[in-house]
Amino acid sequence: MSAPSPTPSAARRHLLGIAGLSLPDIHGLMDLAESEVAVSLGRDKKKAALKGRTQINLFFEASTRTQASFELAGKRLGADVMNMSVANSSVKKGETLIDTAMTLNAMRPDILVVRHHAAGAVALLAQKVGCSVVNAGDGAHEHPTQALLDALTIRRHKGRVARLVVAICGDVLHSRVARSNILLLNALGADVRVVAPSTLLPAGIEEMGVRVFRRMEDGLAGADVVMMLRLQRERMEGSFVPSVREYFRFFGLDAQKLSHAKPDALVMHPGPMNRGVEIASEIADGPQSVIEEQVEMGVAVRMAVMEWLIGDHSEASR
Amino acid sequence: MSAPSPTPSAARRHLLGIAGLSLPDIHGLMDLAESEVAVSLGRDKKKAALKGRTQINLFFEASTRTQASFELAGKRLGADVMNMSVANSSVKKGETLIDTAMTLNAMRPDILVVRHHAAGAVALLAQKVGCSVVNAGDGAHEHPTQALLDALTIRRHKGRVARLVVAICGDVLHSRVARSNILLLNALGADVRVVAPSTLLPAGIEEMGVRVFRRMEDGLAGADVVMMLRLQRERMEGSFVPSVREYFRFFGLDAQKLSHAKPDALVMHPGPMNRGVEIASEIADGPQSVIEEQVEMGVAVRMAVMEWLIGDHSEASR
Amino acid sequence: MSAPSPTPSAARRHLLGIAGLSLPDIHGLMDLAESEVAVSLGRDKKKAALKGRTQINLFFEASTRTQASFELAGKRLGADVMNMSVANSSVKKGETLIDTAMTLNAMRPDILVVRHHAAGAVALLAQKVGCSVVNAGDGAHEHPTQALLDALTIRRHKGRVARLVVAICGDVLHSRVARSNILLLNALGADVRVVAPSTLLPAGIEEMGVRVFRRMEDGLAGADVVMMLRLQRERMEGSFVPSVREYFRFFGLDAQKLSHAKPDALVMHPGPMNRGVEIASEIADGPQSVIEEQVEMGVAVRMAVMEWLIGDHSEASR
Repeated sequence: MSAPSPTPSAARRHLLGIAGLSLPDIHGLMDLAESEVAVSLGRDKKKAALKGRTQINLFFEASTRTQASFELAGKRLGADVMNMSVANSSVKKGETLIDTAMTLNAMRPDILVVRHHAAGAVALLAQKVGCSVVNAGDGAHEHPTQALLDALTIRRHKGRVARLVVAICGDVLHSRVARSNILLLNALGADVRVVAPSTLLPAGIEEMGVRVFRRMEDGLAGADVVMMLRLQRERMEGSFVPSVREYFRFFGLDAQKLSHAKPDALVMHPGPMNRGVEIASEIADGPQSVIEEQVEMGVAVRMAVMEWLIGDHSEASR
Repeated sequence: MSAPSPTPSAARRHLLGIAGLSLPDIHGLMDLAESEVAVSLGRDKKKAALKGRTQINLFFEASTRTQASFELAGKRLGADVMNMSVANSSVKKGETLIDTAMTLNAMRPDILVVRHHAAGAVALLAQKVGCSVVNAGDGAHEHPTQALLDALTIRRHKGRVARLVVAICGDVLHSRVARSNILLLNALGADVRVVAPSTLLPAGIEEMGVRVFRRMEDGLAGADVVMMLRLQRERMEGSFVPSVREYFRFFGLDAQKLSHAKPDALVMHPGPMNRGVEIASEIADGPQSVIEEQVEMGVAVRMAVMEWLIGDHSEASR
Repeated sequence: MSAPSPTPSAARRHLLGIAGLSLPDIHGLMDLAESEVAVSLGRDKKKAALKGRTQINLFFEASTRTQASFELAGKRLGADVMNMSVANSSVKKGETLIDTAMTLNAMRPDILVVRHHAAGAVALLAQKVGCSVVNAGDGAHEHPTQALLDALTIRRHKGRVARLVVAICGDVLHSRVARSNILLLNALGADVRVVAPSTLLPAGIEEMGVRVFRRMEDGLAGADVVMMLRLQRERMEGSFVPSVREYFRFFGLDAQKLSHAKPDALVMHPGPMNRGVEIASEIADGPQSVIEEQVEMGVAVRMAVMEWLIGDHSEASR
């Protein structure tokens, strides 16, 4: 492979969040991901970087796209991939998170990809097992591969991330996507804004180095990137669930609101979309939308992360 | 591979139904399937025709046998196969069919195998994606691989399909199997009959080129093939669900009714069977039954379809 | 491979229980399993013994660890593995066990791994299919791979099984693990005890060649191995479900009770554990516990069993 490989580090073993990554790590991962994109475009979509390795996807929360993305990423790297979703697992029989993880660990996987509904659960689990762990989303905490794929998508369109104005809009409070993106975009030198109603903003969000806007028109003014968030109604308690109609009127991305951003602003959404809630269909399907490309970059980023963590760097090509 | 390969066609990209197939396509697929049968009989059950390719099985309706058949077919062709069943998918989070398909499409599969409860959904989806699509059953519309495996099973026993009398019996109204079989058997020159109570017959079925019978004794008279259909009670509305006992008495295949067909008539059923409803156990397990062979031909036909759509024709053997 | 291979036998086709194994078979399987341990420890965790073969895991009862263990075992042997869990299967549509099995059999697997809630169901199924069958647990009858992995774990720590005092404790009545272990440990010459309240003991258990104890203190006195069983509350009828607090007080393994065993006694549990019910956390995580190693041996034993049944013995190494 001709792509630059991230500098190996003895300390590197897990990807638990953007928080733990150095700037060289981030650039290295993005460059490696860029080189992985081509793998999925060939007739033969496989390389041998993880040949003979075992990847277990341990999902305590259901997820179509993230699990599928990691599964394809692993298979395209040549790994054996096993899915373990909680619906079919002994967790139902009352086993603890740690016992489940220790059991899987004893089966000697090389890498565990974990999604859990509790913030911090993945980091806790990583302390217990002998293999590499990738955080595929833990509660409202972090979702590092999502942030990496978003940054890669931006960089491919704008040539850089630094100094771009990025507006992250919507349900920031319940969003691990927002959190990981704020950390990563700031590390890469972007000018990050969040736009949300007060009820969907975590206290002290300004301390993460973002400017806060309450109106889409203000927050989107001059933006290079408009990143919509999914309204996580499933994580809200009864009385605070906003009306969908009201939400769309004030915070849903439509042509009128988008007109405040730069004319060539990118429109992003991590999916799955609630059309007519966070985003109008005409915008989701419009010329500024890079939503499908985000999904494509997702496979490439996950390939890069897993190859970076456990790949055979000396023989990473076929 | 020594088997004749179907004539490649620039237009060929999807298998959405029997309706879109030319007669050379049909014969080519059946011949290719015939050659695939042997693959599953060896110790090493794999060929390399789809090596490095990605197959996604996207099932909006549960199905043991069809999904398993496509999964094994893909694996035996060397593809990476990913199952995506709706129970675990974001469709539950309210995502639309098309968004789900576009998301998967962005992951760059080579082939999507789709089952959906709505007629036409698979064709709609095929217009949106960049890969080949196989219809694994859409509502009461089509189930083309089932018809191809039925025809192959018949041809293996009778040497031909043309001029055979085939009686398709039972719940024709709700059956995509019946529809695809009528199209295919007619194309191959069979003499096709349907036998059903009026309540289980679609209006205008005669226009599909079949003769309609209301009594099993009449419809089976002189038949070379008796093809039973599954009673799709799950697709019926409350008041029109027939009594199982009554149904079996009039339309269930037992020795007495079968005696009206030719002595060497084949007995077929697409499965899963309701024993004692559509068919008596002694007939299902009897010497005229080819029900298990249908399942075996299913794997071969699905291998042929996928190899035909996306295989490396220049190097289709190991 | 340098490990001794079990003597091939024309009669050998299935692994339905410990009951059908000869002593040379048992020793051969344990020796082969010992050699499989190393496979999972390498970077490249694969061998080619089942290359091109098809393994189907047919689970009528959910199970994280057993299904995962068989899946990884098969993949590490190079087989194509397909999971078939009843939750997604046509069994819901009313198909019989045998029809499901015959359908899968017609897809030409080389090996079927079956778990079923009814004792004897797996043996019944094995009579009907053309491939090898492994019993992955049938009701309260047998779970032979669990017994083999337990014996292997013991042998690795104690150098032998013969003449060791093994106390099997807890819900013997509902436990296929207990049953298979009693058969295997007796065959290997161990001194086997069971320790349980009368309500959790099957009638006539003494005839299996074990000594029965009603108090942990008595049953554990001088034991080399303390094998705890899972309390199978899901298999009990309402009025006979013991209080968890009472159960732990009298039959849960804690430091005080364990002190009656030999100081270097092994502590085992087949998992998933109910901490604080069958076993105190401090014991489960303590220095005498080999519970995680049991899981690790599980993969090795299942590799050995499948290689033994269907592997290419002439070319079993890479």
